[in-house]
Amino acid sequence: MKIQSALYLVPVPISGATVSDVIPAGNIEILMQLRHFIVENVRTARRYLKHIDPGFPIADCTFDVLDRHTSPEEVAAMLQPLRTGNPIGVMSEAGCPAVADPGSHPVEIAQSEGLKVIPLVGPSSILMSLMASGFNGQGFSFHGYLPIDASEKRKALKRLESESASRQMTQIFIETPYRNNRMVALLAETLSPSTMICVACDITDPEKEEVVTSTAAKWKIRKYDFDKRPAIFLIYSGAKGGDRRRYEKK
Amino acid sequence: MKIQSALYLVPVPISGATVSDVIPAGNIEILMQLRHFIVENVRTARRYLKHIDPGFPIADCTFDVLDRHTSPEEVAAMLQPLRTGNPIGVMSEAGCPAVADPGSHPVEIAQSEGLKVIPLVGPSSILMSLMASGFNGQGFSFHGYLPIDASEKRKALKRLESESASRQMTQIFIETPYRNNRMVALLAETLSPSTMICVACDITDPEKEEVVTSTAAKWKIRKYDFDKRPAIFLIYSGAKGGDRRRYEKK
Repeated sequence: MKIQSALYLVPVPISGATVSDVIPAGNIEILMQLRHFIVENVRTARRYLKHIDPGFPIADCTFDVLDRHTSPEEVAAMLQPLRTGNPIGVMSEAGCPAVADPGSHPVEIAQSEGLKVIPLVGPSSILMSLMASGFNGQGFSFHGYLPIDASEKRKALKRLESESASRQMTQIFIETPYRNNRMVALLAETLSPSTMICVACDITDPEKEEVVTSTAAKWKIRKYDFDKRPAIFLIYSGAKGGDRRRYEKK
Repeated sequence: MKIQSALYLVPVPISGATVSDVIPAGNIEILMQLRHFIVENVRTARRYLKHIDPGFPIADCTFDVLDRHTSPEEVAAMLQPLRTGNPIGVMSEAGCPAVADPGSHPVEIAQSEGLKVIPLVGPSSILMSLMASGFNGQGFSFHGYLPIDASEKRKALKRLESESASRQMTQIFIETPYRNNRMVALLAETLSPSTMICVACDITDPEKEEVVTSTAAKWKIRKYDFDKRPAIFLIYSGAKGGDRRRYEKK
């Protein structure tokens, strides 16, 4: 790929997968031409660049750290190379930048200034879990985290279940990894026995990946151990596939 | 990647991009080992396989066609090779199978029988437009098509705008390509002047890709031509980036 003067959104692996199994070669071509980076963690970013090419000229590069504490003014300053025609790469700790991480802030500012933004292809547990769940992919919502408080969390789950039924939409959310097992137990006991629950764990990991869809009733008696593993949860209580309508290319 | 006995969800390009720019090499390794396919269109699928490897043994392969008319019984029959240990690849016309296409039906059945499902990485205009929009990626909904009827469509847009404001969620939808320009005009005149609208067009196309975010007020006076091009629309009327909370790896 020919590099342009743009803010590149550069996905990185989300698991122990081999880079070439989850990242297109074209991304690597772009990445190797970049010298300015906005990253969530400098050490991870450098390690990734060195992993791809041990000879990558790290010393000639700039790395700006972006996290939830970075102010809008600081983010705006990070875009300075781009304003003079030099491409910048945004990389988060894992997966696709600007989805569920602070990466959207530089994109927001770049867009407001009319600077070009180019998203690259990469692994997303949200999209991949949706694909593998068997649930409706024509309508879905991602909610990030649900409330921490147990009674609030239960209420949120009931609300998502009823929205899924009324709007035929798949509902997707995440949990702090050490609470994954408790989340499955809560889902199984809170939702209607026939509501479908999918747990997708270690997505893209060649050894550990598991994507399991079953009814709430069956999750109650099933054995599982998802604790401390990256997992994502999906629920669906709408019509089954045969009853859905209006497909289209995406 | 070592192939397993599984239902593989095999993404294909969504634009004129070079395959290696949007598809990881690992997918191609898997694809070249598959001999059973469930596809939206046999001709497109064969052409893709031949494009990747002119010597691919098409004649030794089975291709089952899956579209909106395929019955659940027919879909179940297509999974027969997998029940005896032979992997199957699902490919839609464009992009990631089982997201906004009939690909989710075989996945639903495979999951109900406890058959392994493995999603592969590939281009998704939903996810990539979200990344490049600058909008909230911690909470978002994809709605497929909005109602065709003009007054119903307007109502749907107002509802999405108010949900975006109250829940801080990015709202994503598509339109029939020959109506793209009319959709932009409708958005600009229907939504509040300060609501943000992103139009992402020809995602991953090396020449034609455009991802433009601006306020409804500015779209009213902006020049554009998105007709007959694959486009996706995003609106956001919640808080700007600095006010969002709780990021996490995905």
